[in-house]
Amino acid sequence: MEVTRTLARYVLESQYERIPAATRHHATRTFVNWLGCAIGGSRHATLDIALAALGPMAGPAQASVLGRAERLDILHAALLNGISSHMFDFDDTHLKTVIHPAGPVCSAILALAEYRPVSGAEFLHALVLGVEVECRIGNSVYPEHYDRGWHITGTAGVFGSAAACGRLLGLNEQQMVWALGIAATQASGLREMFGTMCKPFHPGNAAKNGLVAALLAEKDFTSSDRGIEAPRGFAHVLSTKFDPAAITEGLGGSFEIDLNTYKPFACGIVIHPIIDACVQLRNEHRLTGAEVASVHAYVHPLVLELTGKKTPQTGLEGKFSVFHSAAAGLLFGAAGEREYSDAIVRDPRVVALRDKVSATIDPTMHEDQTRVEVKLVDGRMLSQRIENAIGSLARPLSDADLDAKFRGLAEEVLTPTHIDRVLGLAWKVGELPQASAVAHAARDPA
Amino acid sequence: MEVTRTLARYVLESQYERIPAATRHHATRTFVNWLGCAIGGSRHATLDIALAALGPMAGPAQASVLGRAERLDILHAALLNGISSHMFDFDDTHLKTVIHPAGPVCSAILALAEYRPVSGAEFLHALVLGVEVECRIGNSVYPEHYDRGWHITGTAGVFGSAAACGRLLGLNEQQMVWALGIAATQASGLREMFGTMCKPFHPGNAAKNGLVAALLAEKDFTSSDRGIEAPRGFAHVLSTKFDPAAITEGLGGSFEIDLNTYKPFACGIVIHPIIDACVQLRNEHRLTGAEVASVHAYVHPLVLELTGKKTPQTGLEGKFSVFHSAAAGLLFGAAGEREYSDAIVRDPRVVALRDKVSATIDPTMHEDQTRVEVKLVDGRMLSQRIENAIGSLARPLSDADLDAKFRGLAEEVLTPTHIDRVLGLAWKVGELPQASAVAHAARDPA
Repeated sequence: MEVTRTLARYVLESQYERIPAATRHHATRTFVNWLGCAIGGSRHATLDIALAALGPMAGPAQASVLGRAERLDILHAALLNGISSHMFDFDDTHLKTVIHPAGPVCSAILALAEYRPVSGAEFLHALVLGVEVECRIGNSVYPEHYDRGWHITGTAGVFGSAAACGRLLGLNEQQMVWALGIAATQASGLREMFGTMCKPFHPGNAAKNGLVAALLAEKDFTSSDRGIEAPRGFAHVLSTKFDPAAITEGLGGSFEIDLNTYKPFACGIVIHPIIDACVQLRNEHRLTGAEVASVHAYVHPLVLELTGKKTPQTGLEGKFSVFHSAAAGLLFGAAGEREYSDAIVRDPRVVALRDKVSATIDPTMHEDQTRVEVKLVDGRMLSQRIENAIGSLARPLSDADLDAKFRGLAEEVLTPTHIDRVLGLAWKVGELPQASAVAHAARDPA
Repeated sequence: MEVTRTLARYVLESQYERIPAATRHHATRTFVNWLGCAIGGSRHATLDIALAALGPMAGPAQASVLGRAERLDILHAALLNGISSHMFDFDDTHLKTVIHPAGPVCSAILALAEYRPVSGAEFLHALVLGVEVECRIGNSVYPEHYDRGWHITGTAGVFGSAAACGRLLGLNEQQMVWALGIAATQASGLREMFGTMCKPFHPGNAAKNGLVAALLAEKDFTSSDRGIEAPRGFAHVLSTKFDPAAITEGLGGSFEIDLNTYKPFACGIVIHPIIDACVQLRNEHRLTGAEVASVHAYVHPLVLELTGKKTPQTGLEGKFSVFHSAAAGLLFGAAGEREYSDAIVRDPRVVALRDKVSATIDPTMHEDQTRVEVKLVDGRMLSQRIENAIGSLARPLSDADLDAKFRGLAEEVLTPTHIDRVLGLAWKVGELPQASAVAHAARDPA
């Protein structure tokens, strides 16, 4: 079975006209969510460091670093935008594989689009295909590959970038096979790096290396024709499980991007049901915090195991505190990057409410469920049960939610008028004559 | 046990004054051999392709592409010089791990030295340390890591590059730990790619990515502190065997570069004893080919399994023909890249002699042994037995042999006068005020 060649052929033969409208819309949502994350992360110290270290080696000003003023060669732009988009762990998730699909693909093709112009439709099509390739390869080796210690967003992502860039570059079949092979031999990224700057480096590096693979293949740089499936190819060397059918069967009949999800809250997904319940209680009962006597949550065991920090002192620690997160949801009706800043975590109003939050394990709860009870100072009891948290496949964020998330992320970086312009273009990316218009708009003109 | 930190500390604390003179000379030999290979490979189509594909993204003219006129940013220069040095599979071999140590290390530090000047002594010291790091890491996971399908020159090489560059950049201990971690999370390269342009890509990519790791760490880009030894770190994720003591014990007491070997012949090592015997017979008996009636070799079983091609039609096929190789040794007293050109493989004189060569398996032979019998037309019988082939640890190439090898490789690229100048500088690299003088000299001024 020619796995690599079958996949290459599909990527080249796919027709945009046959991509369902709903899937195109999913792709647009993936793009909008990614762009907001990349702009929002663009001022983090990690980006400053990467620019200081590698900027002196960068080539011509071919592509934009989103949310910033710098323009770099497309390889470095892909790297940096991939880093910023994963900076807050707030980007998209393909729940079946825990791949964050957009970072490796969008970071590469948007940089490439600034150098080799493509229409918005071609761009959106490449995005759909890139996500298809990385998620199918992920499906074929998950979970053993991830359990072994590989950061699958890096290892599978490089294929997504190579395929999407290869499609935009107009590779022929043999070149696409080689591009996937050159991607295979660069697959890397260890879970050991979680909690360090190397974690967001992985999708950036995957974006850049996949782009390198496509550019080399375009000039007939050869690789194995069986980079994925050969006995010494990607799947067997990096995983103990390999299901080739997960890659080759039903191509074009369904789209993995339809399964993409977007986090409403800037923290681990395990706390999302609790925040969701708190936000709903706040909005329904117009709570301001002062009327709350106590808060109690019934939660899945993982919640306290992973996020049981009672008295977080920093924004980052706040992300590992279900207590802070619940307080933020009740007080602000949100839990974005702002609500996980050092200042908010230390805010006396937040701390006072946080200290009134408790939680009990309820072994009957599945991971996406919770029940939160709020006792008010007037003695009333409020209660909210969540069956599926907002942002899950069962209760996806609305387009308006994605707008609000984008604005929350971008507001520290761009002016409101600027945000309006970028957001307007991003939602219309599939209709733009040139996809690069979004990248140009998303620069910081300063 | 802090494996990564122990290694980082050693790299920083090592003193050049305590490196034995013999080890420094080994390092110089490694450098000379690598430089010849890089210059010799520099005009291969693989380099043209890589330059055409990635040249437009390259940054300022910071470093030389050896043997060519181009100057690129140090990352791309490291990549390209690493590719050319492994182009002919004619570079050095650390036999314990089959790592080709020089490519990842020399390609990175020579490019870096053009951008951040260092003395020849600092350069040679970094080379010793980089080879130490990559070979010790290789020792700790070999052979399981290699058997699993990893091209160990790529996966271990990136650490060697990071360590050597980090030493030259003056990293502190924490930064060096991070550099090794950033290297770990980029470790890649599949044996599936052997026989394609991706094979020489691996040492080039390792050189470049190790340099990236060191440059990022210099600006405090963080990674895990236990990139090598953690449960989800390099060794456990990429190997089923891990012997940490092979990395941490006896540091400074011995040097892996002392075990480096250099190929005298541009083909698989399994044919080397036969060529060696033929060259000795030719030189001792002043054979010209015409006086030979037949040639018979008694060989290890692997020789016919790997190189049994009776009628090779191209230079590349010639490398897999013990018959052609023996004929070349008898006719030319050499088996360099020239003797594996298409023209020589098809030369009627060579073909005529090749057709007189036969071989029999002798199960008592070990891999480094052979006996070759030559019957002359006048009826005389000549015989040569080899116990250890030239180029092995037991019979290393002399400095004069390395000179001759260098000249043979460079003669297609540079003028004889130019070669003299480069070779003179390369042998004196440890005494140069600036190591970069070698890189400047090794450019093609045209």
